[in-house]
Order: sequence, then C-alpha cells, then structure tokens
Amino acid sequence: MNTKIVLDENRIPKQWYNIIPDMPGPLAPVISPRTLQPVTPDEMLAIFPMSLIEQEMSTQRWIDIPDEVREIYKLWRPSPLFRAHRLEKALGTPARIYYKYEGGSPAGSHKPNTAIPQAYYNKQAGTKRIATETGAGQWGSSMALACQIYGLECTVYMVKVSFGQKPYRKSMMQLWGAEVLASPSDRTNAGRSILAKDPNSNGSLGIAISEAVEDAATRSDTCYALGSVLNHVCLHQTIIGLEAKEQLAMAGDYPDVVIGCHGGGSNFAGIGFPFAADKASGRDVRIVAMEPTSCPTLTKGVYAFDYGDTAQMAPISKMFTLGHDFMPPGIHAGGLRYHGSSPLVSQLVHAGVVEARAVPQIACFEAAVQFARSEGIIPAPESSHAIRGAIDEALLAREEGKERVILFNLSGHGHVDMAAYDAYFSGQLEDYEYPEAAIAESLKHLPKVSL
Amino acid sequence: MNTKIVLDENRIPKQWYNIIPDMPGPLAPVISPRTLQPVTPDEMLAIFPMSLIEQEMSTQRWIDIPDEVREIYKLWRPSPLFRAHRLEKALGTPARIYYKYEGGSPAGSHKPNTAIPQAYYNKQAGTKRIATETGAGQWGSSMALACQIYGLECTVYMVKVSFGQKPYRKSMMQLWGAEVLASPSDRTNAGRSILAKDPNSNGSLGIAISEAVEDAATRSDTCYALGSVLNHVCLHQTIIGLEAKEQLAMAGDYPDVVIGCHGGGSNFAGIGFPFAADKASGRDVRIVAMEPTSCPTLTKGVYAFDYGDTAQMAPISKMFTLGHDFMPPGIHAGGLRYHGSSPLVSQLVHAGVVEARAVPQIACFEAAVQFARSEGIIPAPESSHAIRGAIDEALLAREEGKERVILFNLSGHGHVDMAAYDAYFSGQLEDYEYPEAAIAESLKHLPKVSL
Repeated sequence: MNTKIVLDENRIPKQWYNIIPDMPGPLAPVISPRTLQPVTPDEMLAIFPMSLIEQEMSTQRWIDIPDEVREIYKLWRPSPLFRAHRLEKALGTPARIYYKYEGGSPAGSHKPNTAIPQAYYNKQAGTKRIATETGAGQWGSSMALACQIYGLECTVYMVKVSFGQKPYRKSMMQLWGAEVLASPSDRTNAGRSILAKDPNSNGSLGIAISEAVEDAATRSDTCYALGSVLNHVCLHQTIIGLEAKEQLAMAGDYPDVVIGCHGGGSNFAGIGFPFAADKASGRDVRIVAMEPTSCPTLTKGVYAFDYGDTAQMAPISKMFTLGHDFMPPGIHAGGLRYHGSSPLVSQLVHAGVVEARAVPQIACFEAAVQFARSEGIIPAPESSHAIRGAIDEALLAREEGKERVILFNLSGHGHVDMAAYDAYFSGQLEDYEYPEAAIAESLKHLPKVSL
Repeated sequence: MNTKIVLDENRIPKQWYNIIPDMPGPLAPVISPRTLQPVTPDEMLAIFPMSLIEQEMSTQRWIDIPDEVREIYKLWRPSPLFRAHRLEKALGTPARIYYKYEGGSPAGSHKPNTAIPQAYYNKQAGTKRIATETGAGQWGSSMALACQIYGLECTVYMVKVSFGQKPYRKSMMQLWGAEVLASPSDRTNAGRSILAKDPNSNGSLGIAISEAVEDAATRSDTCYALGSVLNHVCLHQTIIGLEAKEQLAMAGDYPDVVIGCHGGGSNFAGIGFPFAADKASGRDVRIVAMEPTSCPTLTKGVYAFDYGDTAQMAPISKMFTLGHDFMPPGIHAGGLRYHGSSPLVSQLVHAGVVEARAVPQIACFEAAVQFARSEGIIPAPESSHAIRGAIDEALLAREEGKERVILFNLSGHGHVDMAAYDAYFSGQLEDYEYPEAAIAESLKHLPKVSL
C-alpha cells in the first residue's frame, strides 16, 4: 500500500501528447485584433519562434520532448503521484483518491513545465531575450527560471499592485536573473499612455500583456511568452497527465474521474488531455474542470470569439469567455481570475467531453485545510478548487456506498500564499455571487467576427 | 548520468543511527539548572516521555524506526539526492557535487524528520498536548504538522517580534491546527513576569523556551518538544545521511567531504553522523560544519558547561558555547542564531572528528544565488552556509586540479524567506565581524559546574 508512486527520472515521457488530432471537430481560426481576419504567420512570427508556432497548429499526435528539456525536467520530474490514504480515512470514503503533486518544482507550481521548453525553443531559434507579463508572479518566476537556465535575458512586466504587494515573487524573479518592471512602465507606448492618463495606475494583467507584446514586437532580439491558454502551453503540460497515467498503472488503477482547477486552462489540460484521449477512444472516464464562482468562465460564459486581453491587443480566439472587459472580484486564487479560457479546453467543454463546475472560495479553503491536515502539503489557493472537487466526489462515493477512483492535480504549494490562509482563518474572506449583471454587460462587448 | 537519485519509499531506512556508542569518549552528564548537579530522571520525566529520554541516553547503535513513523515519512521521504551537474559546470570544477534536498517536506525543511517521531512517541506515552517554542517558525510549523497527524493538541510560544513580522509561518501553524501565542504571553509565570516589567517586550527565544517548558512542567497532560540540540533530535535526523549514503552508493560514489550548516546541530548531525561512523572505522572522510561569522559557536566559542537558554531555565550541557547571554546580530539565517550547540556535535568538534568553519552572510547569499541560478532550487538562508562550503571545496578542487566528491545537505527551501534575498539584492545586508568583545563578556557568565 504505497503512499506515493515514484517514477525513475529515465521514465520521464519522451513525447508530449497533442490533443489537436483527437479534437471533436476542426479548430476555429485565431483572429487578428487589428484586421478581424485570421492571423497571418508573419503576425505570429513577430512575437513567437517558428517552432512554437508549429506546435500551436500541429496535427501530430505525439511531439518529441527535446533531450535538453528532459534534462532540465529532471530537476523536479517525474513528479510524485500520491495516494491520499489519510484523506480517504478522514472522509470515511470508499473512494481511492490519488493526486499528482506539481509543487516540487523550483518555482513551486506546474508553470515551469512549459516555461522550460518555451525558453529552450526560443534559444534554439536565436532569441536573445524574452518579454512576458505576470500577475501575482507564478508565471513570471517560472519564466525567469527558464531563461536563466538557457542563458536568455528576461524582462517581466509585473502588474503594479502585485509588484508592491507580492515582493516575494518579485525577489524570486530577480534571484533567477530577470529584470522586473512594475506595469504600467515607461518602457512601452502602452505603458506610457496609461501613465499619462493616470500616473498612479495600479496596472492590470491586460495592460501588462500589452506592454510585453509591444516590447517583443518592437525588438528583433526579443520574443513573447505566455503561461497558459495557448495550444502549445497545454501541449507541454500534458507531461503531468502522461506521468500520472503511468504511475496509476503501476498502482493497478485507472481513474473514474480526473479533476483539475481551471484558470487559463494549462494545468487542467495537463492532467486532463491524456485522459480525454482515452475517452475519445471510448473509455469511460469523467474529466472535470473546477473554477471559482467569482469568475465562472466555463459555467456562465458564452462560447464565442473574444480578445485574449482587456486591452484588445492580443489575438481573438473562440473560447468560453465572460467578456474581455469583465473584471472578476479580487479572490485569493489569482491564477483563476481570467475572463477567457484555452480554446482547446473550451471546445472540449462545448462538445461535452469535459464537465465544468464552479465553487465558492470559502468552500475551497475548507477543502484545502482538510487536505493539509490529513496529507500535510499546503495547497496553493488555485489548487484548492481541484481539492474541493475531489472531496465532493469522494463524499458522493460514500453516500452511494460505491468505490470510485479519483485523480486530481495539485498544481502548486501555498507557502507563498499564507496571507490567503490568514484571511480565511481570521474570517475576512467572503464568497461572491455569480456576478450575472457584470457578465451580461461585458458580454455586450464581444468583437464582431464574421467568417 | 542521473540528475537525481531517487529511492523507492520501501527503502526508507528501518533504523536510525545512534552515534553515542561510537563517540570518542564518554558523554558529559546533563546538569540541572536548579541544583547544578546531574539531572534526575524525574526532572526529565516532567517534560519528556520515557521513550525519548531512553533515546537520549541509549548506547544501542541502531534504533528501530516505528512503522507508524515510516508511514508518515513517506509523505516526502526518501528525499532526493541530486548531482549538481549544472553547478559543477558553472564552477568549472573537476569535483562531483551532490546535495541531499530536505525542502520537499510539507514544512519545507528537515525539521519534520524529528517532529514526526517526537509526536508519535508522545502519543504512545499518552501525552495529550505538546508545548513548544519557535523563533522564525520553522520548528513550530513542523511540530504543528506532526501533532495534527497524530491527533495531539499543540501550543506554540512564538517570539513576539516574529509573530508580528513572520505572519506566514504563524498561518502555517494555524493551518495545521496549532494554537500560536505571542511570547511573552500571559499564559505562564515566566511570560507574566516579563510583561510586568516590560509590557511591550519583543520576546526572545530564551523567554519562549521558558514559557513552553513551564507550560509542560505544570500540566500533566502536556510534554515539551525541542527541535534541535538534543541527542534524540540528532538521532532522528540521521535518516538524512543514511539515505544519502545509500543513494551515493547507487551512483557508485563516496564523499571526500560532507558539509552541513550548523545552528543547534540537528541538520548537521543528520547528514554528518552516518559518515562520522565510517570515519570512526578508519574511512578517510572530512565532515565540515558551516556556521555564520556573526554567531561563531564552534569556531570562537569555548567547550564548557552552559545553559541551553538565556533565561537559565533549560538544562546545562557541555558544549561549544558563546555564553548563554550572548545575543547574536539579527542575520537572516535565523535558524543559525544559537549561542550553543548539540553536545554530540560539540564533542566531535572538540575531538577533531568534525571540522568547523565560519562564513559571513553576504558570501553565503552569493553562493545561494549562484546555486539557484544553476540548480533552480531557492535555498533557505541557513542552507546557504552549506552551499558556500561546498562551492569553496569545489573551487579548491579546481585550483588543485583534483577530483573530489562533495556532499552537502540542502536543509530547506527559501520560498518563505524571499525578504532576505530582497535585502541582499537591494544592498541592505551587512557582514558582521566576529563580535569578540561581546563573546568575551558573555563567556564570563558560564555556570560553575564542579563534578
């Protein structure tokens, strides 16, 4: 009765799984925000290397992981798969609960799984420098690490309010050698125009994206990198689910339900897509995306073309969206506060392959505390949504008196997020109703794309 | 060429290594602070369960690890042993550098290695509640975790200045179900008498120890727990070195030098003692304790009887000490700011089995940054002292053009210590000279023990 199932590092998967050939129908095109027509390769090449653009569109089911990437993955991969014996006992459930733990990476989350290959492909393509944005800092720190490893310069536009309030993540980025700028900055036209209107602007993720994209588009030595949403990001994250599947096989098990939290979609895709492949082949497995009720993209949004960012600078994708100018309340799971979703995940939800469920944050912190008290590990606030989903499935199994195999992804640890737990314990957290009116308003502003 | 050497969880050692029978000479007695005579078993039983007192004195070389403890160890053990390929390359050294990484525990350091068995033995002995103290919070959070796992209540007296300045660690303890009190508190005579004199007292580790010991001594359901220094604590930590030895053997290597940072001595004992055993059997291996120049216990202290705490409430041990009222400067490696040392480690240093070296903090942060930029992992400020030692050995190997196998213990991650890195990067850190005058003064106050 093992507690954790560990793979030798030589068994890190040699290929990522690309779900595109197994999708239920063709992909919608990506639309240029300038022309409202499909983006041209030239527009993409201004900010991404060709190799990543190819991965974005590839119809090959398996894509080789370069040896140089697997070598770096070995710093924390294969990540352990745990059987949650103590949580099962605490819940009194006949379910068998497994969780894949991605918090052991140097940055403490799943984000380096894609930061490393993105930096690698950029290095191969001759990129000297990466510009990217970050909100709370998880993605920026992962990209800083990756750039450090491959010898790329890295500039991170960090939303100003986080720059001030989350100095720990900023220090991590500096430790890994990145330049960190509070956004809006005076480095870009986008930043300067905001500052001209409001010198005290707190910034937003939308503004930071605009700054990073402008930086990359206007310097020939620089490319842009994004930490979620895009197809190639989801591709890289499938290493999570591929390993989990192998580890579950070692335990002689296969999941009835696979659960991940959902913000932009990358960690969810990571754990879910390799099982969606089995489902496409007729296997009976449920795949569930857990999102916050305060930002209920998949459960209350529409499946439509929308901008990837508030500033309408990023490409337009067909996805579930709450409207690009929807501003979710300031919940503690900052990584789940995104108005849109990965187009791949969205299409799978739309086709009924993936289920979506929204949960309020207090119930998620309750689940996280129960988890930490039985399994020890302190979850990131984002990951607590997946735990809530897993515990609810386990409780249902108890009610029904049925066995059930539950797999969820614990996408990161919460050591840098203890202020959120502090707020929870001191009763300062509140739940938000579905902000129906705000969503209805922002959905009026979708771009008019006619294809 | 593996990056990390991973043991299956079934290969967690089944016994701890007790160095007492292999010590170079008999142990000095532990002296009661009240009588200045050897402590009686009754004095010990007031605050510790018999099983731990027996371990404290045992002359058995191998002590079984209970299955119930190994079961919990599996949450993060065996910990990985890494070969630092990228650091070696960055240093251009012919040395082979290995590090054992203890930061993967739920608390982020090696401390749970002893917190778990201490809670277990207390539970077996019928203890209902543990009282302990904590400075920055590493030990308190580990003990909170351990008590939560075995269903014990836990009260942590946390030095008031840290209680205010380190809310993250406080929240961790609460998350794991502990009661956390700012010390001095009104819960004990010790606390009340301090508050009567100075209602705004910031507290100190000495005061917090006094409060926790008084709490345990005056309640029959409560025992006390200490996170370092004591023999049984060092014993439990040997799991680090025992695993490392097995992992090195898998890599076909054996260290020329074994390095740990040194505060109270527990993580150092953990990595060092299993190799000291080999040295006692004639094997050629150096064992080096790294301490801060600001608190140079082993390099500038005397080997003498002294109180374990500032308040002269804790037992008197023969150890290296700077004097119990020596107050080290406020460096960022809070876990290394202790005036004394483990009596076992002290005796080994005195006998020349273990070498000691002091290093200034800025050089340690330099080493930590070089390490993080090549290996990815962000070290705790304490652990950076071991890294400094390892890098210096590797640079020496380069100068000499000689191969050398270096093993060090990376005792914890620094995700909760990023403020220290921030201070380093912003040039706010300073080095302290050996505080010779302060040491000379405090050494005048050693207790007069005549045996």
